[in-house]
Amino acid sequence: MIRIPLARMAKIVTGRLLMLVAFPLSFSAFADEGMWTIDNFPTDVVAEKYDVNIGGDWLGKAQLATTRLENGCTGSFVSDSGLVLTNNHCTWGCIRNLSTAQRNLSDEGFMARTRDEELQCPGQQVSVLVDFEEVSDNIASATAGMGEAEANEARKAELTRLESACEEASDGERSCEAVTLYNGGQYFIYQYKRYDDVRLVFAPELDIAAFGGDPDNFNFPRWCLDMSFLRVYEDGKPAQTPDYLRWRAKGPDAGDPVFITGHPGSTDRLLTVAQLKFQRDVILPLWLLRYSELRGRMMAWQYTSDEAARTVQQRILNYENAIKVRRNQLKALQNDRMIERKERQERSLREAVAADPALKAAYGEAWNLINKSLETHRNFYEEHLFIENSAGLAGELYNYAKTIVRGTAEREKPNSERIRAYTDTALPMLEQGLFAPRPIDREFEKLQLTFSLEKMREWLGPDSQWVHTILGKEAPDVLASSLVSGTKLDDPSYRKQLWEGGVDAVGASDDPLIRLAAAVDPGARALRKRYEDEVEALRVRGEEMIADARFRLYGTDTNPDATFTLRVTYGAVEGWQERGRPVEPFTRTSRLFERATGQRPFKVPTSWSTAREDLNLDTPFNFVATTDITGGNSGSPIIAADGALVGLAFDGNIHSIAGDYWFDPSMNRTVGVNTAIILEALQTVYGADHIVAELSFID
Amino acid sequence: MIRIPLARMAKIVTGRLLMLVAFPLSFSAFADEGMWTIDNFPTDVVAEKYDVNIGGDWLGKAQLATTRLENGCTGSFVSDSGLVLTNNHCTWGCIRNLSTAQRNLSDEGFMARTRDEELQCPGQQVSVLVDFEEVSDNIASATAGMGEAEANEARKAELTRLESACEEASDGERSCEAVTLYNGGQYFIYQYKRYDDVRLVFAPELDIAAFGGDPDNFNFPRWCLDMSFLRVYEDGKPAQTPDYLRWRAKGPDAGDPVFITGHPGSTDRLLTVAQLKFQRDVILPLWLLRYSELRGRMMAWQYTSDEAARTVQQRILNYENAIKVRRNQLKALQNDRMIERKERQERSLREAVAADPALKAAYGEAWNLINKSLETHRNFYEEHLFIENSAGLAGELYNYAKTIVRGTAEREKPNSERIRAYTDTALPMLEQGLFAPRPIDREFEKLQLTFSLEKMREWLGPDSQWVHTILGKEAPDVLASSLVSGTKLDDPSYRKQLWEGGVDAVGASDDPLIRLAAAVDPGARALRKRYEDEVEALRVRGEEMIADARFRLYGTDTNPDATFTLRVTYGAVEGWQERGRPVEPFTRTSRLFERATGQRPFKVPTSWSTAREDLNLDTPFNFVATTDITGGNSGSPIIAADGALVGLAFDGNIHSIAGDYWFDPSMNRTVGVNTAIILEALQTVYGADHIVAELSFID
Repeated sequence: MIRIPLARMAKIVTGRLLMLVAFPLSFSAFADEGMWTIDNFPTDVVAEKYDVNIGGDWLGKAQLATTRLENGCTGSFVSDSGLVLTNNHCTWGCIRNLSTAQRNLSDEGFMARTRDEELQCPGQQVSVLVDFEEVSDNIASATAGMGEAEANEARKAELTRLESACEEASDGERSCEAVTLYNGGQYFIYQYKRYDDVRLVFAPELDIAAFGGDPDNFNFPRWCLDMSFLRVYEDGKPAQTPDYLRWRAKGPDAGDPVFITGHPGSTDRLLTVAQLKFQRDVILPLWLLRYSELRGRMMAWQYTSDEAARTVQQRILNYENAIKVRRNQLKALQNDRMIERKERQERSLREAVAADPALKAAYGEAWNLINKSLETHRNFYEEHLFIENSAGLAGELYNYAKTIVRGTAEREKPNSERIRAYTDTALPMLEQGLFAPRPIDREFEKLQLTFSLEKMREWLGPDSQWVHTILGKEAPDVLASSLVSGTKLDDPSYRKQLWEGGVDAVGASDDPLIRLAAAVDPGARALRKRYEDEVEALRVRGEEMIADARFRLYGTDTNPDATFTLRVTYGAVEGWQERGRPVEPFTRTSRLFERATGQRPFKVPTSWSTAREDLNLDTPFNFVATTDITGGNSGSPIIAADGALVGLAFDGNIHSIAGDYWFDPSMNRTVGVNTAIILEALQTVYGADHIVAELSFID
Repeated sequence: MIRIPLARMAKIVTGRLLMLVAFPLSFSAFADEGMWTIDNFPTDVVAEKYDVNIGGDWLGKAQLATTRLENGCTGSFVSDSGLVLTNNHCTWGCIRNLSTAQRNLSDEGFMARTRDEELQCPGQQVSVLVDFEEVSDNIASATAGMGEAEANEARKAELTRLESACEEASDGERSCEAVTLYNGGQYFIYQYKRYDDVRLVFAPELDIAAFGGDPDNFNFPRWCLDMSFLRVYEDGKPAQTPDYLRWRAKGPDAGDPVFITGHPGSTDRLLTVAQLKFQRDVILPLWLLRYSELRGRMMAWQYTSDEAARTVQQRILNYENAIKVRRNQLKALQNDRMIERKERQERSLREAVAADPALKAAYGEAWNLINKSLETHRNFYEEHLFIENSAGLAGELYNYAKTIVRGTAEREKPNSERIRAYTDTALPMLEQGLFAPRPIDREFEKLQLTFSLEKMREWLGPDSQWVHTILGKEAPDVLASSLVSGTKLDDPSYRKQLWEGGVDAVGASDDPLIRLAAAVDPGARALRKRYEDEVEALRVRGEEMIADARFRLYGTDTNPDATFTLRVTYGAVEGWQERGRPVEPFTRTSRLFERATGQRPFKVPTSWSTAREDLNLDTPFNFVATTDITGGNSGSPIIAADGALVGLAFDGNIHSIAGDYWFDPSMNRTVGVNTAIILEALQTVYGADHIVAELSFID
């Protein structure tokens, strides 16, 4: 599945997104590569290749029909009453939060028969991009003539100021977010209309939504009904959404050109070779070791009770998905020929810079700056990860504690001096998450906290000052148990009371997790400061220089790396050759039943086996296309040239994972749910005629 | 700890040991490098550097005082009555097999007050090397003029024949084993005296033996009393062992030259660069992913019951040890400068070969042969691993089934045509293991089998023919549960009945694990055949060619890579510089108590806290030396120049792990238990005067 993997999401949320400018690859110019911004879409290239006109009107309409789910996904409006189509796996959090020991909506599925039955998803937000403005000149002025660390602070302060000014100018109608494209080549302020009342309308059973589970994830042929419907509300009523997508009942044909709008999370196609090796040698191995072990703990723990199984069922799938992504990223980076190609490309850029005295003076030091940032980062990577990024203090409860301790302190500062996660424009979403009534499984919290404390001790070593500060003479499991048992942070009203009480309430709290977070915070801030001044500042400056050099040398007809902002990609419905054998682009419903074993994850739910005789077994189920997407595109609409919705992106094939570093048009495929099977399921399996009646169809 | 890590042990036992000839490194010629064979020890170099004479007498005595523990360790005789000193961690299997829910010898420790109280370790064997003979000419004759695959078979058949001839000539007094040194540069038959009645005499509590647990493993400073005493018996009486080591009560002094005899398992110092990259990119990542997850499953499972905790307590430490080894091996191989140095060395050898027409004709193709073997191996690495090497069918019970199914079939063949694990000379040890009464925890077996079946499906994919053959329509956990519940293979008498009944009994058995192993065997044999003919045969031939080229170009004054055969290494008691700070070579007992937290793994057992006032807190505890050892040297005696026992090797420092690929004399250190603290503990903590009385002392 191509929801943003867990670690990526954290990277984005905490503002440490590694992004780099795009540049012309050595593949054919006609390769279907690129996650294009709406204002720089290659209309002419597409017209030439596919003989269709995807112009401003088309794109503007698609923009307003496309939604961002703030938990790392995409969706699209499919009615004028706020009905949103997205992936089932993008609604797992909502489904879990709404489930109880007595009513497992994941196993049973969910369908509201009336609007009154639609259930609000705690903390869920949905956004639509309505406008954007370039502010590159403001940033250039604000940072002119400064050293790296000073410029890094000034840049952030200016972005914070611009965001607030934008929101004020909109009278609170818009949420404004700074966006960095082309790695500092361009800065923008994006304006979103944000919906914070989001309700669950329909979700099929997990057994059909994620049929094949982890074994089939990123594979194709495939049979997943990975879809849910949500609805956005305003003032307690369904929102009016006149820009929505019409539905093609028969889905796409082989060879059809298709377009995908959505919010791809991040790509790393133009990292320097040194940055790629840092991923290969430092980031990915440590991540994989930790999460493989955590996966194992959850796999064993799920057998301890029915509640444990329910608590981790979807989480295990999420972790397995992230592990599959990471291990295939590592595999991609271990391909020495790929690294050598990247080295050649980098050499050619550096030689072009060196050959021109003006370019050399302006940009020649860029790679050294980045190398220096990596060397420094290497020296305290583990400490920064385990302490400031809380890899050593995992779980929702500690996360609440950290947010409250740090957030209340940050709120005391002037807006432009705050850590950007706590600026005025960031607080509404943060507060919605903090106050949302989500069920907490204390036993699972203990498991996570024990694990993370043990890993902290393992990687920082038993003699680290951090181990002494946090563990003292306690064993990790004993400490975790006492912290989780003793805290009241599972109570949203207690969180709200502390948050609204501010630093005084936090200082007076004897909650053990609040006290621990307060003890960790000063040192963690010192690590953050070191990271910002000695790593981030150099990297961002170096990347800005490379971005500018690329613009100067290669022009601007390129697409930036993904940044969880709106993009459009184009391609066609088309299979590929796997080890010399053709993979057909469509699967059919009949083979779903042949593949079923009766055992999870290959178990067809009862609703489907009951409906089998009534189903049209020729209905196309999943399909592939040559479009260029990545994590964050989960839930993206797959749109035909005439604007009809023909599919719902939910995954890539296994080769798509290397797409983080480069796009291979011969192998990289999007995997989508066909609109035909969604319709067939709604009508024949689920009797959801009221939902079908709300859709609009186009031939 | 430097017991052979699990995967290595399997590699050796199944005869797939990757070994390569040694060649002169670019370090100083006086570096304390080398795991030397007893007949090629650099007496002159040592005399020059340390002004001591380590000649044939010294070495011959040390040879007979050094024992191999057939579970992957070393030991030494310390009395004339068969008393063996080894590491506590080398006796964990024995301790676990002798423990019950009511009597946990790991937690409590064990001391036999009389010989009658000494407890036999099920399946344990101890060997002493008594003679060896070079047979390189026989192998050369047997394989002359053959293609790789044919030569591979003929080589094995000749080694089998030579082993049997050796045992027949000894009238059954000796166990004979073929040994390949210098990677095919030399072949030997080693003769061992083997003891199959081995009893536990003394073991301290795990809490002091492995004080610091995984967090401190491979670290120094250190405080581990990682020692046990065993005793070998003959005809029901303590064996007579006149060649034993005398004990130095005060241990070594800083700067003392020291010598370590033992059985290092394997090193990879002279793999080709392509082979190193295969480890880096294929073998190590997959291994680490699997074992990190298994570790997690065991960590979570241990909380489910006291019995579960007891079952996995030491196993977790073993896995953690292996994970630490592997992840530091991976880190070593990710050092691009190291790889570049290896590339330069390889280029220089290849250029020297290419420059001489005779050498070129004889050896020029060696690297291409190895590359071809790797490419082929890459194409079915996972399949071979999960099926033929049983990574997809884990647990002691399946292992019994596989041994019985395959072994009974192999016994039908003439000796020289059998897989070498089942030759006449291999069968006695195999049978002792198969018939030994070891307790089996069925719940743990289910955990292991479930895990391995799931990993098989994950890595081979749900559409693999193997997944269909083994799982059918079952879920891994359901199948594992039914297989483990249904088998009778936990009963040694049933195993014996099947083994002695041969293929007929096996064919008639309805035991579900026997039936599964029988269903897997033909396909697994096909994978084995492919591996032998297309991978191993090419690799061995290529390695032989490189070994010969090295002998021709660099001479024979070198030491071979480790092969779990007797070696001697030399060095001195000496600390090192860690990030600019000196690490002293000795630790003292006083700091053990300061470091204790009262919580495992930093918990000092009650016996020690009780004895604290009586202990001499200045007693040196652990120490480091510059000697070159690796996994398999666990339990090795550390011997002074005058032949006195001064320490017991049990670990290396963290830098020693890269020693698998190269020896860095400035950083690589052996970690040993000082004979002074063993004596102090025996006398003051354990009241083991009867054991002390059995030792002989030397000033």
